[in-house]
Amino acid sequence: MTDNLKRTVFFVSDGTGITAETLGRSLLAQFESMTFEEVTVPFVDTLEKAAHLVREINKVAEIEGSRPIIIDTIVDKSIRSEIAQANGYMMDVFETFVDRLQDELCSKPVNAVGKSHSIINNATYNVRIDAVHFALDNDDGAKTRYYDKADLILVGVSRSGKTPTSLYMALQFGIFVANYPLTEDDFDDLRLPASLREHKRKIFGLTIDPQRLSAIRNERRANSTYASLNQCQMETRAVEAMFNREGVPYIQTTHLSIEEISTRIMAQVGIKRRAV
Amino acid sequence: MTDNLKRTVFFVSDGTGITAETLGRSLLAQFESMTFEEVTVPFVDTLEKAAHLVREINKVAEIEGSRPIIIDTIVDKSIRSEIAQANGYMMDVFETFVDRLQDELCSKPVNAVGKSHSIINNATYNVRIDAVHFALDNDDGAKTRYYDKADLILVGVSRSGKTPTSLYMALQFGIFVANYPLTEDDFDDLRLPASLREHKRKIFGLTIDPQRLSAIRNERRANSTYASLNQCQMETRAVEAMFNREGVPYIQTTHLSIEEISTRIMAQVGIKRRAV
Repeated sequence: MTDNLKRTVFFVSDGTGITAETLGRSLLAQFESMTFEEVTVPFVDTLEKAAHLVREINKVAEIEGSRPIIIDTIVDKSIRSEIAQANGYMMDVFETFVDRLQDELCSKPVNAVGKSHSIINNATYNVRIDAVHFALDNDDGAKTRYYDKADLILVGVSRSGKTPTSLYMALQFGIFVANYPLTEDDFDDLRLPASLREHKRKIFGLTIDPQRLSAIRNERRANSTYASLNQCQMETRAVEAMFNREGVPYIQTTHLSIEEISTRIMAQVGIKRRAV
Repeated sequence: MTDNLKRTVFFVSDGTGITAETLGRSLLAQFESMTFEEVTVPFVDTLEKAAHLVREINKVAEIEGSRPIIIDTIVDKSIRSEIAQANGYMMDVFETFVDRLQDELCSKPVNAVGKSHSIINNATYNVRIDAVHFALDNDDGAKTRYYDKADLILVGVSRSGKTPTSLYMALQFGIFVANYPLTEDDFDDLRLPASLREHKRKIFGLTIDPQRLSAIRNERRANSTYASLNQCQMETRAVEAMFNREGVPYIQTTHLSIEEISTRIMAQVGIKRRAV
């Protein structure tokens, strides 16, 4: 029997699959009443692999009684044609857009596989790697002497999202992000710690709903004072008071993904991507 | 004067801009003879912001003498129409695909903004954060007692790409990746260190061209023995011999991006994404 509210989706690529996945998820997120079973199939770069995939798609179509959606970013036309044989509904991203771009740009596409997530040049690669190591080396607030090299210094209480955000910005955009955890010792006078003051224009605060913070901390250290709602309320109230008093811009991370926290901060502060 | 080989591209979104950027770069990478000046404009979620953007695009068009490319993933039709007023060539991703999907799925889109990179549920968010902390806590090989919780253990010489790869897999896919740096001490008998042997089926090796490794290490510690070509040749030869002898699968990271290293390993080992 067909369940009209469930559909399998294949994200297919001759490269990493990241573009097909990213675009596909954006599109599917618009159909909230449906449930999608996602299958990412990267590195489909031969006719043989394409034929294998066609059999897989057909099997799913038969079992589920509805044809899968196929979102593909394959460059090679013969591989695309092979996949088009499958019993699926194919949304061909490159066919849709590359021809249009070709006309507009008056330029011929190279038709080369897996271009987008390859190393384009070593400089771009290096800046991302350097940014990751910078984030790791400046993660715990233990040393602040490299803060003059930072593009941004994230401050907030433990588990407010500083470390994942700094690593995401490093990996994705090559931005140098230090982070400084604020602890009870810092709350006495509700002023920024002395070591941060000279870098004030680089500082951005993260805060989080105390209930959510408590839940996150309980995963790490169940039933500890550290994770108690009381403690979390005290800490978040104190940092927000500090941010307000010091005029430090800050963001509520409670309902945001790492991607949203990162891009919102970048938009607000006006930091440009270093690695693209 | 118009330079036909250069064009400005605006990636425009009502959310983070990641989808427009990812798709846009994939498409533009097909036009190798061109140079693109990229501008990402996230969070365009009001008519006022759209009108401001239109003025920006028009200014660029006037200065450069060629209309910019606009790749947008905006959901709201009135905001899209506003941007369509600009003197640019607009490739409207949602208009192109969402209508087609609506017909195929017999389902109505929600037309809600910034869906794709929002937190969909806390469980998915938590697994990514937990994976990041797992990667950080198991980054240097100092402790191996949590390796039973790892999905994957990356091994390789210093600066072969282990740390960025493990963090990327954690952030992007919620995969638990430990990493273990192999040093000279480990090369005596060309066998895996004892603490790794019981986890052998989770182990994946990274290796790298010695020239490239030497260049990377020189950025960190210029003119050191550590960075010398001799040392890098010795170490890479030794790890590759170890991998071959022990039957550890491995990958050459030299010409690969972090995304490629990660997705190739996942495809080869058959690890599924935990967080989507």
